[in-house]
Amino acid sequence: MSKLVGNLLVAQSGGPTCVINASVAGVVTEAGKHEGIEEIYGGLNGIFGILNEDLVDLGDEKAKAIEGLRYTPAAALGTCRYKIDFKRKAAKAAKDMDRLFEVFKAHNIRYFFYAGGNDSQDTSHKIHEEALRRGWEMRVIGVPKTIDNDLPHTDYCPGYGSVIKYNAATVMEVGIDVGSMATDDGSCCIIEVMGRSAGWIAAGTVLAKRGNPANPPHIILVPEIQYDVDLVLAKVKETVKAYGYCVMVVGEGIRNKEGEEIGADKDRLDSFGHPVLSGAAEILKEYIQGKLGTKTRTVLLGYAQRAAEHFASATDSNNAFACGERAVQAAIEGHSGQMVKIIRTVTDGVVNWSTGLHPLAEVANVEHFVPRDWISEDGCLPNEKFVEYARPLIEGEVRFPVEGGLPRYTTLEKVRVEKLLPARD
Amino acid sequence: MSKLVGNLLVAQSGGPTCVINASVAGVVTEAGKHEGIEEIYGGLNGIFGILNEDLVDLGDEKAKAIEGLRYTPAAALGTCRYKIDFKRKAAKAAKDMDRLFEVFKAHNIRYFFYAGGNDSQDTSHKIHEEALRRGWEMRVIGVPKTIDNDLPHTDYCPGYGSVIKYNAATVMEVGIDVGSMATDDGSCCIIEVMGRSAGWIAAGTVLAKRGNPANPPHIILVPEIQYDVDLVLAKVKETVKAYGYCVMVVGEGIRNKEGEEIGADKDRLDSFGHPVLSGAAEILKEYIQGKLGTKTRTVLLGYAQRAAEHFASATDSNNAFACGERAVQAAIEGHSGQMVKIIRTVTDGVVNWSTGLHPLAEVANVEHFVPRDWISEDGCLPNEKFVEYARPLIEGEVRFPVEGGLPRYTTLEKVRVEKLLPARD
Repeated sequence: MSKLVGNLLVAQSGGPTCVINASVAGVVTEAGKHEGIEEIYGGLNGIFGILNEDLVDLGDEKAKAIEGLRYTPAAALGTCRYKIDFKRKAAKAAKDMDRLFEVFKAHNIRYFFYAGGNDSQDTSHKIHEEALRRGWEMRVIGVPKTIDNDLPHTDYCPGYGSVIKYNAATVMEVGIDVGSMATDDGSCCIIEVMGRSAGWIAAGTVLAKRGNPANPPHIILVPEIQYDVDLVLAKVKETVKAYGYCVMVVGEGIRNKEGEEIGADKDRLDSFGHPVLSGAAEILKEYIQGKLGTKTRTVLLGYAQRAAEHFASATDSNNAFACGERAVQAAIEGHSGQMVKIIRTVTDGVVNWSTGLHPLAEVANVEHFVPRDWISEDGCLPNEKFVEYARPLIEGEVRFPVEGGLPRYTTLEKVRVEKLLPARD
Repeated sequence: MSKLVGNLLVAQSGGPTCVINASVAGVVTEAGKHEGIEEIYGGLNGIFGILNEDLVDLGDEKAKAIEGLRYTPAAALGTCRYKIDFKRKAAKAAKDMDRLFEVFKAHNIRYFFYAGGNDSQDTSHKIHEEALRRGWEMRVIGVPKTIDNDLPHTDYCPGYGSVIKYNAATVMEVGIDVGSMATDDGSCCIIEVMGRSAGWIAAGTVLAKRGNPANPPHIILVPEIQYDVDLVLAKVKETVKAYGYCVMVVGEGIRNKEGEEIGADKDRLDSFGHPVLSGAAEILKEYIQGKLGTKTRTVLLGYAQRAAEHFASATDSNNAFACGERAVQAAIEGHSGQMVKIIRTVTDGVVNWSTGLHPLAEVANVEHFVPRDWISEDGCLPNEKFVEYARPLIEGEVRFPVEGGLPRYTTLEKVRVEKLLPARD
C-alpha cells in the first residue's frame, strides 16, 4: 500500500450529542501524529457546509480548545440534516457529488471522516464509492454518532451512554419528587424522551430503578411495540394503587395497537418526510386524567437530553474520543469505506472497551432495534438482559470547568480556509 | 422568658425543591444541640400527615442519613398541597385546627417548624395564633422554601438558586445544540419553565447569556408582563435573522395582551382552584411555525427542574441548611410567629449570607414579583439589575455520592412514632 499524503477533513452530521465533539477531538489529536496528514480541516455544518466550501483550519486551534471538545456538547463544527438523496432526487444528488469532489480536489482532501448516524453513514458510503469510481484516492471512514443507538454492528453508538445517564438521573429525581408528593389522591408523571422508531433511549431509563421494582420508572413504552392504550391505563392504575404514584417514560414515536404513532401530527413533515412528533406524553396525560381521574404532569426533555454535558457519561465520552482516534489510524493503515465500531469484552465481570471496523456497505440505512426478548412480555419494562447491556454505558462522569456556577464549554476559533472555487449555484 | 421543654416537629409542604431536605437537616442538626428539645419528630406529608398523626422519630435516623439530606432532592418526609382554608371552608378549618392541637398536645409538641411557600407560611401563622389563643405554649417558625421565589422579605427563597442554576445550564446546553444545527433555514426552541404568576424562574435563565447578547436565551417571557404575541413573533424573526436561531424561555403562566394566560386550559382546575397550565410553549410553537414558518421545538422541564440535585447550587443548599438551623435557634431564644429570612450583604463585591427573622403576619399570602425595572423596556429580557441579584445564587455545586453512574440519594428509615389518638374522622 502506497503512503497517501494530503489533507484531512472531518465533519459532523445529524442531531448533536454530548460526545460528538469528543470524536472530533480524537480525530484531530490522532491526526497530529501522522506524517501523511498535512492540514487538518473541519467542514462547517457537515455536507451542507462542505458543498459551500465552508472549511476551517483545525490545526490553527489552540490545544486546549481541542481538549475542551472532550467536554463540550453539540456540534462544535456545526451540523446539518442535509441529505444527498440518491433515491428520490437522483439528479440533484449527482450534482452534489460532483461539487463535493470539486471541493475535495481543490483542497487535496485525502482523508475524510464523517461523524453521524444512519443517514451520515450512508453518505460516507456513497462518497467512498464515488471516490473509487472517480479514481480519487481518498480514505473515507464513518465515525458512529447517535443518541438513538440504532446503528448496527457497533456495541453501542457514542452519544447514547450520555443521554441515558442524564435521562436515568432525571427520571430518578422526578420519581423522588413525585413520590414525595404522593398523598391520598395519587399522581402520575409522564416523561417523554427522544426515539422516533427505536426505543433505546426510553429503555435506558430503566437504570433509574437500580434493581428495585418499587423504584420509578414503573412503565416504559418503546416505539418497537404496539400498545393497547387501555392496558397501559390499567397498568398505571395498578401502579398508583401499589405505590401512590406512577412514573412512566415514553419514547416520542410510541404506537397504539393499530400501529399508529400516538403523538403524531400527520399534517406536518420534517425535511426527511417523516411526520413531526411531539405529543405522545400529552395525549397519554389526557387519557389518564380523563379516564382514571389521576392528576398527571408531563416532562418533555427534548433537546436538553442530548446536550446535557453537565451529567454526561465519561465511558461514552472516552469511547467517542477513541472512535475518532481509530478512524484516523484505520485510514492511515489504508482502510476506506469502513465505520468504526465499539467492541465490548467482559472478563471476570469487568467490561473493557475497544474499537474495530465494519464495512459501511453493511451499516448504511440499517436500523438496529431493541431486541424483543430484552423487554418484559407485556412490553412495559426492559428486563435484566437490557440492564446488563446498558449499565456499563453510564459509568463515570465527564469533568468540565465551571465558572460563576455554570459550565464553561469550549468554542472554536474557526479560522476559515480560503475558498478556491466559485460559489455553488 | 421561661425555658420551654418538649418535643420538636418539623414538616415539609408544597412543591418539593432540591434543598428543602437541607433545611430539615439544619433543623435536626441544630435541635440536637439544645436541651429544651427532647424528641425530634418529623410529620409525614406536611399538615395532611400530622392531622393523621403520621409522625416519625428523626432522632432514630442515622447521622449519615441526616447528612445525606443535604444532597437529596424532593421532600424526604413527604409533602402535601393540603391547605387549611379558613376563608372558604371555615368549619372544616376549625375542625382541622382542633385536631392539630390534639396531636400537638398528645405528643407534647412545643417546637413546630414548617418548610414551605406562601400557603405554608400562612398555615404556620395560623397555628402560631391558635397556639396563643388556646394557651398552648409552643414556638412556631416558618422555614422559607419555594422555587417560585415569591415570598417577600427574604433575599431569595431556598430552592430558587438551584432551579435557576440547573435551568440556566440547560438553556446554555440547548442553546449550543440549537445553534450548532442552525443552517440556512433557521430554527427556534422554546423552553417552558415553572412559574405560574411570578417570573423569577424564567428570568433566572438570563444567567446563561453570561453577558453576551448573542448567547441564548434571546427572549425571556415572564407572567408579570402582558405580551403582544405579534411583537414576540417579530422578535423571534429578528433573532433568527441575526443569529440563525432563537432560544426563548417562557414561564408557564405568561399572558397575552388581553391578560389571558397563553397556556391555560380553563376547563381544568387544581386543588386550589387555579387553572391547570401546561401549554404556553406548545401554543407559541404553533404560532411561530404557522406564521413565520420557522422550525420550532419545545422543551418542558416540568418537575425535572425542581428535582435536579445533580446540578444544584451549593450556595442555595447551604443557605437552606442555615435556615433550618436558625429556625431552631430562634425558637430556643423564645421567638414564635416568625419566618426565617435570608439576608445578603455585599462587602467589596463579595457576597455574604446570613439569616434573620420576619413576622409571619407580614409574609403570609403576600406574593413577591420580579420588579418591573429589572426587565428591559420591551419586557423580553431581564437586565443587569436582575443579573446582579441572581448571579450569586448559583455559585458552587452540591456534591453527592455516585454509584454505578447515578446519584445515590438518601432515604430515611421513617421509624413511626406510636399513635396516641383515635383515628381522625
